[in-house]
This record gives sequence, structure tokens and C-alpha cells, in this order.
Amino acid sequence: MSASPRSEVMNFLNEVAGRYPSAVSLAAGRPTDELFGQLTATALVEAMTRYAAADGVPFSALLQYGRTAGLINALMAKQLRIDEGVPASAERLLVTAGCQEAMSLCLASLCAAPGDVALVCNPTYIGATGAANACGIAVHGLSDAEGDLAAAIERAVVMLRREGRHPRVLYLIPDFDNPTGLVLDRAQRIAVLEACTRHRIVVLEDNPYGMFRYDGEPVPPMAALDESGCVIYLSTYSKTLCPAVRVGSAVLPETLFGDRAARVALFDDLVARKSYLTVNTGQISQAIVGGQLLLHDCSLRAWIQPAATVYRDNRNALLAGLHAFLGGREGIAWNRPEGGFFLTLDLPFRFDADAVAECANDEGVIVMPMAFFALDTSQDCRIRLAFSATDPAGIAKGVEALARYVTRRLARDARRETALALPA
Amino acid sequence: MSASPRSEVMNFLNEVAGRYPSAVSLAAGRPTDELFGQLTATALVEAMTRYAAADGVPFSALLQYGRTAGLINALMAKQLRIDEGVPASAERLLVTAGCQEAMSLCLASLCAAPGDVALVCNPTYIGATGAANACGIAVHGLSDAEGDLAAAIERAVVMLRREGRHPRVLYLIPDFDNPTGLVLDRAQRIAVLEACTRHRIVVLEDNPYGMFRYDGEPVPPMAALDESGCVIYLSTYSKTLCPAVRVGSAVLPETLFGDRAARVALFDDLVARKSYLTVNTGQISQAIVGGQLLLHDCSLRAWIQPAATVYRDNRNALLAGLHAFLGGREGIAWNRPEGGFFLTLDLPFRFDADAVAECANDEGVIVMPMAFFALDTSQDCRIRLAFSATDPAGIAKGVEALARYVTRRLARDARRETALALPA
Repeated sequence: MSASPRSEVMNFLNEVAGRYPSAVSLAAGRPTDELFGQLTATALVEAMTRYAAADGVPFSALLQYGRTAGLINALMAKQLRIDEGVPASAERLLVTAGCQEAMSLCLASLCAAPGDVALVCNPTYIGATGAANACGIAVHGLSDAEGDLAAAIERAVVMLRREGRHPRVLYLIPDFDNPTGLVLDRAQRIAVLEACTRHRIVVLEDNPYGMFRYDGEPVPPMAALDESGCVIYLSTYSKTLCPAVRVGSAVLPETLFGDRAARVALFDDLVARKSYLTVNTGQISQAIVGGQLLLHDCSLRAWIQPAATVYRDNRNALLAGLHAFLGGREGIAWNRPEGGFFLTLDLPFRFDADAVAECANDEGVIVMPMAFFALDTSQDCRIRLAFSATDPAGIAKGVEALARYVTRRLARDARRETALALPA
Repeated sequence: MSASPRSEVMNFLNEVAGRYPSAVSLAAGRPTDELFGQLTATALVEAMTRYAAADGVPFSALLQYGRTAGLINALMAKQLRIDEGVPASAERLLVTAGCQEAMSLCLASLCAAPGDVALVCNPTYIGATGAANACGIAVHGLSDAEGDLAAAIERAVVMLRREGRHPRVLYLIPDFDNPTGLVLDRAQRIAVLEACTRHRIVVLEDNPYGMFRYDGEPVPPMAALDESGCVIYLSTYSKTLCPAVRVGSAVLPETLFGDRAARVALFDDLVARKSYLTVNTGQISQAIVGGQLLLHDCSLRAWIQPAATVYRDNRNALLAGLHAFLGGREGIAWNRPEGGFFLTLDLPFRFDADAVAECANDEGVIVMPMAFFALDTSQDCRIRLAFSATDPAGIAKGVEALARYVTRRLARDARRETALALPA
């Protein structure tokens, strides 16, 4: 069981998008260009200059090699405290080349021994399973993750230990999960923390979408609920500033399961590993992020508001479209995410790569099979719909096209069943 | 046998530098700040704007996620063809987050099976052995590498195969090696290529210093001499633009040992692995590099001239200082590098971490034991002297200080020997 490698999925989707350039994409989970509106060339220069001035260094000093652990750790920690309620601190924060590097470093460091296993939800983000695969780390998917994740962890621990294997980390996106759009509620988070503490499993809490809540009440991040020292918080500026800066972080807890020295040793190991992957995170990018954080007193809440408004309107358009074109149909259901970029659509038939191509070719809409994110066949009748990078009109058009496909597909499947049911 | 991890070495040197802030450093191999003189914040953003305009895309398009394989591949390939004589081509060039990522990706991909071994010179660059260690790849140091590297490869192949192990790659810096400053001549390069072709060992040719030749005749890069498809060329802009861009590349040969499909498969594997490490190389950085390349018609030869002049003058000052203060002493010798950042000084005694601290404390100069780069004890009586990041006056002062240490140390060692030789 292994998730489809990201490059394969991306190649496939790029190929489909290239073949059908006029098709609406409900597949791409990119941030809206609206986010970058104010990041003009001038704004970038000002950000770099502002950061250098505040740091009291000549601009040219930023252009050198730098500390492997990072340059803007204090500013990033402050922003995570203010905006996300994460108890971050500069000396426990490692600045990374995007969140993906943080994830890869943590997986490699925490699952270094043979028999070490990374737990993931099923389905989950391709970047996590891909990073584990690239590092040669076994991945175990938690089934029934949507229902009772803590119970699924307990079952996995028993099963894996029986095989002489050791679950060391749990990767998850508790807020507006990619791909499902689901949120773990407070009680679920606490239950997961208790299970992980009991079995000394480190939680890698990835939170790219937490700042994008459109309604409902926020749930504290697991790093804020963590009392035992079991959560490493992974952050990124790809959705709050822009992907091109490639700046993220891993924030370690004050102690690792109560052991401060163990946390320090883990941090040092991550720094050593990073020095062999990327030496240090580019200081031009760090200075841009640092300068933007200084400009906004270390809170990006207001800065992201225009993008959040776009996403909320898009989500509303998607929900309205689904209601209008697919509402009330048997075997068709979807969740109503209170934030993020994605939702899950259940269909009464398998939706595979052939269906993607057919849908794009015949109806002009590109969607993502949930199976691409899955570790088994349980997600075969689902798709992920992304609403971040299209506009409401495109979304409405896309859902209408998808509904046409569903109707044709159901009719065709019914004819086939009838044909099969006929006496030979 | 394992080289000291970079982070340990760096921590140690930073600590020494922090304890003795007034000491002259002949340890740091950073580029001179002279290199960045013209890279103002405005120049960086003009470069981005220039790149966007030439590419016909709005500036904001650069701020998105991008192709994992890179954005500026054609410009980088052209610069490598013009400036370094490397037969590079855009579709075989992977843009990476600095050369370190390229190295790590190639090692992981080419040494993926148990028993696979990476060959390195002894001593060698810490980043190479460190990357191999971090990936769990065994490293084998080639002894007598300075004399006849091809013969050392043949001996290593026989020895490793007898143990059921497989040498897959050879990492080396043929031009002005870090740490030794040595150059492989044309005949040596051809002999190495023949040995590697015979045993299907991929050469990772790392060439950060090749553009910095101060006198003598250039030797073609191994990638240009490669007729069998065995060289992957690793490049970086850290020494030709600035380290803060964190942009480098791996250039694959047209075929891998005559097999075009194998090269395509290797490229695809590197791209997939990169997508799980850093997603894509930051497009702000790529656009800065791209804009600079456009400005200079894809040749940085003239651009680096001021820095090269600094290094040449520094090298001359170092050679003059060595001649003046250590010339003619028994057991003391050094090479005269025709380029690069480093030279090797042989001493008639062991020079270890304690000696570094003593030298810094008592005489005010910081130098790097060659043992830090070594896989065995063969380098214990050598040091690496870097001349890139200090000025001639500092260098003269540093060498004079080092000579004082050598004199004191020899006298002390002689007293000890005399004391030991006395009858009890």
C-alpha cells in the first residue's frame, strides 16, 4: 500500500490540464493570486531593506551564508504565538525551505531506525507519504480516522508492535485537512494527544490552512493543547505570503515527553540534517518574510483577509453549485468545510484516472480522485474538490459540468448493470 | 571512520570565533562581500522584474508554486555552456536549492540499495560525507587520491566488491578542491573517467571554484571530457552571485552510460525526490538569478572579476606570508593553488581541535585542521588555510601569528621529547 507519488499525480494532472486548457480546474490547491496583489517588486525591496535596518546589519550581510537554524526565528515565533496561538519560541524554531523540508527532516530524524513507522491518516497529503517513501520510512495508514482517530492509533500501535515495529510519529493536518477539508474537534485533539503521549508518538501538526477559517469557532492547535511535549508544529508562509519565498518552520515543544535534553538533542539533529540538505534557508527569502512580519507587527491576520474573502466566496459558490446541481441525489454527499481550500465529494461510483480524463475531455472540468491520496481502496468513490484557485463563476461552471458527467456516468453504469443482469 | 559532521565543525569554529572575536580567521571559506557590492535590494528586484518581462509573465506569477524541475533551466544551461564549457541542456538540468540539495538528491537516488557505496577523496568536503551519512549511505575514502586517483578507484572497487558492496558514485571537486586546493590535470581526469566508465560509477563533479582561476591554464571540466555518460555536473551561484539565493543545479549527461532512457528515469527520480524535500526551488531566488543572467548575456565572467581580483591578491598575500614566516623550515610545506579559496599546509606535528583553540587564544589566528575533512588519521599533520574572506593585511597578520604558534609548538614538542629521552 503506498500513496501515488506526488510527481506522478502532478505529471498526470499537468498533462490533463495541458490537453484540455479550457477545462475548469477544481483540482489545483494553489493559493489565489489575490494573495500576492500587494507583494509588488517595490514591496519586496522595502521588506528586505526594512529587515536589514531593523537587524542593524548592512544589506550585503544578508547575502552571505547564514545560520543553519535560521535568521528570523524570533519574528516567526512571535507571529505563530500571535496568529495561531502556538507557544513558539525562537530557540526551538527551525527555519526551513518551506514546510516540506521541515516534514522531511522530522520524519528522517524521528524514524531513523529499522522498524520505525510513520502513522498517517488515510487519505492524507501526498507530500507526507512521499517524503516518508523517499526516506525509506514505512507508512501506516489509520483507517476510520474520520471517526475516532485516537482509537485508530491504539489499534495501529497494537498491530505494529505485534510485528516488532515501532510507530514513532503521527503526521496530520487537524485544521481543514488536505485532502478532506475535515477539522479535528477539541475532544478529538485531546484524545489523540493522550494516545500519542501514552505511546511516545510525536505528532507532526501541519497547519497550512488554520488561518483560513470562514465561519464557526476556531479550535486551538494541538501544539497549544499539548501538555506532555509531544507536538512538533509545522508552519509555512506559502499560503499567508507566497509560495515563492519557500519559508516554513518546525517548532519543537519545550520538552520532548518531559525531557528537555532530548528536545535539544532532536533540534541539533534536525539542524545537522538540514545543513546537509540545504545548508541554510535562503536569506533573501527570510529577509522578505522578516520585513513583512515587521511591517505588520508580526500578525498576518489582516494581510490575508482579501485572500480569505476570495476563498470564502469560492467555498460558498461551490456549496451552492453542489446543492443546485447534485443536491438530493442518492449516494452523493459532501462536507461543508468552515475553512481551508478543499472539500470531499462522495459519489456512488469509482472515480479513477480514466474518469478524470473523460470528465475533462467530455465535460470540461478537472477534479482530483481521492484515491490519489489514499493508502488503500477505501477512497475510490470520492473526489477532492479545491476551491482556492478558481473564481465563483468558474466554480459554478465546473460543478455543472461535473454534474453532467455524474448523470451520464450513472446512466451508463445502469445500462451496463442491466446488460449484465440480462440472461445470456 | 567518518568525517566530522559539518554542524559539529561549524559549532566548534563559531564557538572559537565567538570566544576570540579579534582573532584573524583563516578558517572561513565564505565568498568575499566584494562579490555582493552591486547586489543592492533594488538590483535584486530589478533582476526579478527583468526576468518576468523576458518570460512574458506578470510579476505575480513568479510568486506561485512552480515546476519542481525549475524555472530558469535554459538560462542556467546557457551560462554553464558559455562560462564553464559544460555541455548542459535545459531538459537535463534540475534547478536545486543550492548545490547541497543537488548532491543530497544524487547520492540518495544513485545509492538507494543496501550495499551501495559512495566514493570520496580523502580528505573531502564535509557536505558530501555529511549528506551521505544523513541518507544512511556508506562512504569509502580513496587514499593516495592526490597521486593516482584512477588507481585508487580500481583498488577500492576490488576491495568493496570482495565485501559484496557496490561503489555507485564518486564525489569530487576537480578544480581547486575544498579542502586541499588541488586540481586534477587533464590526464588524471581522463583516467578517472575511464575507471568510472569501466565500473559504471557515476562521477558527481562539484565545481564551485572553477570560475576562480588566477593564473595557469584551465583544464576542461570532467563533464566536457565525458564520452560515456558518466558525469553529473553540480553547480552553484553561491560563489558567482551570492549564497543567499540558494540556487544550484545538477546537470545530467545526455545518456547514462549510453542509455538515454536510464538518464530520463534518473532525472525523473531526482525530480520526484526533490518534490518531497523542497517542492520546488524558490522562484524569487530563481527570478533573481534569471534576471542577472539576462543582464549579462548568460556569462558571469566579467561580473565575478572584482571578487576574483580580491581572491588572487589574498592568495598572493598568503603565499608571501608563508614564504616570509615559514619558508625553509623542516617538515613545513604548502601547495600553490592557481585558483579557488584554499591551500594545504603540512606541519611537522599533529594539529587538532585543542591546537585550534590554543592558536586562537595565544596567537590570535583561527585555522582549520585538515583532520576535520578526513576519513582517517592521514591528514592529522595538515591544516586548510582559506584566503577568500580576509584581506591581505589580515592574512599577513594571521600567517605571522600562525608562525609564532608553530615556533612555540616545535620548541615545546622538542622539550617534551628531550624530557622523554632522559633516563628516568
